[in-house]
Amino acid sequence: GALFLMSYVLSLLSWRQMKDGEIKRVAHSFKVGLALVLVSLLYMLEAVHDKLGDNAMWAVMTVVVVFEFTSGATISKGLNRGAGTILGCGLGSLVALLSQEIGGTGKAVAIGSSVFIFVAAATYFRLAPKIKKKYDYGALIFILTFSLVSVSGVRGDQIIILSRDRLSSIMIGFAICLFISIFVSPVWAGDELHNSLSNKFDKLAESVEGCMEDYTCLLEGKKGTQSIRERIRSNCLSVLSSKSSDEALANFATWEPWHGRFGFYYPWKKYLQIGDSLRELAAYVLSLTGCLQSINQPPQEFLLNGVKERCESTCKLMGSTLREIGKNIKNMTSHGQRDIMLVKLENLRLELCSSTLQSSIEMLVNQSGAIEGGTSFTSSVFLLGEIIGKV
Amino acid sequence: GALFLMSYVLSLLSWRQMKDGEIKRVAHSFKVGLALVLVSLLYMLEAVHDKLGDNAMWAVMTVVVVFEFTSGATISKGLNRGAGTILGCGLGSLVALLSQEIGGTGKAVAIGSSVFIFVAAATYFRLAPKIKKKYDYGALIFILTFSLVSVSGVRGDQIIILSRDRLSSIMIGFAICLFISIFVSPVWAGDELHNSLSNKFDKLAESVEGCMEDYTCLLEGKKGTQSIRERIRSNCLSVLSSKSSDEALANFATWEPWHGRFGFYYPWKKYLQIGDSLRELAAYVLSLTGCLQSINQPPQEFLLNGVKERCESTCKLMGSTLREIGKNIKNMTSHGQRDIMLVKLENLRLELCSSTLQSSIEMLVNQSGAIEGGTSFTSSVFLLGEIIGKV
Repeated sequence: GALFLMSYVLSLLSWRQMKDGEIKRVAHSFKVGLALVLVSLLYMLEAVHDKLGDNAMWAVMTVVVVFEFTSGATISKGLNRGAGTILGCGLGSLVALLSQEIGGTGKAVAIGSSVFIFVAAATYFRLAPKIKKKYDYGALIFILTFSLVSVSGVRGDQIIILSRDRLSSIMIGFAICLFISIFVSPVWAGDELHNSLSNKFDKLAESVEGCMEDYTCLLEGKKGTQSIRERIRSNCLSVLSSKSSDEALANFATWEPWHGRFGFYYPWKKYLQIGDSLRELAAYVLSLTGCLQSINQPPQEFLLNGVKERCESTCKLMGSTLREIGKNIKNMTSHGQRDIMLVKLENLRLELCSSTLQSSIEMLVNQSGAIEGGTSFTSSVFLLGEIIGKV
Repeated sequence: GALFLMSYVLSLLSWRQMKDGEIKRVAHSFKVGLALVLVSLLYMLEAVHDKLGDNAMWAVMTVVVVFEFTSGATISKGLNRGAGTILGCGLGSLVALLSQEIGGTGKAVAIGSSVFIFVAAATYFRLAPKIKKKYDYGALIFILTFSLVSVSGVRGDQIIILSRDRLSSIMIGFAICLFISIFVSPVWAGDELHNSLSNKFDKLAESVEGCMEDYTCLLEGKKGTQSIRERIRSNCLSVLSSKSSDEALANFATWEPWHGRFGFYYPWKKYLQIGDSLRELAAYVLSLTGCLQSINQPPQEFLLNGVKERCESTCKLMGSTLREIGKNIKNMTSHGQRDIMLVKLENLRLELCSSTLQSSIEMLVNQSGAIEGGTSFTSSVFLLGEIIGKV
């Protein structure tokens, strides 16, 4: 049965043309399976089981809970778990030992009230937004370990030995996770964030160019095709809704060690800032599409003196600049012609401004979008300059 | 020490003027503390401990892990945990029993390979976007229980009894969580979603009115105040970035039982759709602010024939309609004048369209924003009508 399943999975792998994301997903599944087999082997070995006893179960639990898709998330969860366990064990043992000296029903009351106070305090602490972002899991594990250790103190077992064994089996589990997630085809949160950022540039470039296409269709009196608009809309919306996943990735990326082209203290926060400007740009492009959609008849010829060409060239320049920057970010190279491009954009912007008074609605809408694009664009390029300067 | 801490916390509660959110947070902390004390008492009772042994630990663990901020999240996590545990226990016991018939080293190999296959499959399954949204935690618990049960089968203990005790202690933990999160000052995810939606309407209404204010400042030749713009910007950005938290709330809300004004099968998905149109509207308002910001000199008088008044009335009408709808949603009442308002908006839109050819940039930009607003607005009102129809 097992062999059949294996061969089936393998045939699926070779037979089907898989996308990059799916390969990563399959690889991740295999990695988790591998880690669990390794940790189960530890549990099965007599030597280990004699030493740690049923506490070896905690190693299995750690692997299941800590192993995440990206290396950064695994590391962050593991460190949180370690810190939470140490703190919880320490405080829990203290409470258990102190209450053992009381004895009688006083003991149960002392343990109960200290559990209530510490747990309520830790839960309140955990709900603060800043803590929630980075140390939520650590606080959860602290609560868990603290209550388990202090409550098992009621039975008066050897708490210190228990905590020590538990801690060392968690360490073993974490070590296995760490090893596999760093050395076996790692998925770095930093890489994912990097790629998602450069993809955003491409998407926006495509949208801006799509807008221009749509606009030329309108000028020629045709109805713009619906499919282009749908593409633009979905591109913009996907850029707009990327904030929370970006933030999570940036958080994990800060936990990752030196890898590939990213050193320690790599400025991941700049990525979030660029992401914010790109989201704003996406809002502008989205509203531009909306404006184009509400146009019903083509504008009169005489209103378009030279404006059409300028609009087109602005859109083209913006699109190509966005693509260029996306490529530069992807390859982490600085771009010599950046300043020249910016000057060009600025000139076009001024030209558009001066020729606006005699033009018609659609043009103006289009322009204002382009102007806005240009403005927010300049600021994002500025940020980019800073990043490249830092790397 | 404990008494002192208690009185300190109580004095904090009465002394400090707390916001609504903070009261909820403090209440949640107390609830978690209470649940853990209850479950610890169970562990301390001789009768329970004699029956369940150290498996009672699992009840503590369940309370810590399952108790979430909103009732819906607690229920969803608890049900996921229950289902995952039952499935994992069942399959794990099967594997353990079958492999016990093999014996020798073959046993370890059989267990190891079945762990690998099932875990890899479940992990792959877990990464699929649709599963990840609703059943992620259940799959995690399945992996955990399955590997724990099947691996402890190596030692040949009484697996069936072990699983039964573990399952019943998890049930006890879940029952305590359920009781406290539903009956002790519950925080419903549905209520939170409802309020966040009506807040969004208010924020957008404020932004639209702010834009108009800014615009009249510009017409009078003054520079618009920076603080208004900042407010508008932050309002729009907070609406834009609310997608993921709304989706999580809507997911939890579907798990919640009948409460307050919300029945079973309440159409929470409509809330997400309205949220989407509001986010689009926020994008339009945001780009409108950007356009206002890039205006440098006031427009010539003669270009403004009657357009200013129309813009103002459109903005006013939009603002008040948004507020009205927000209030209606909040109180779940239908609004009789809705159709009249929509007709008014449509008329204004047409008027703006016809008077545009002789007007200047700023007006046009403003108009297009208003037109767009009107369009997307109509669709959101339409959706609203459906919801109210359903409740």
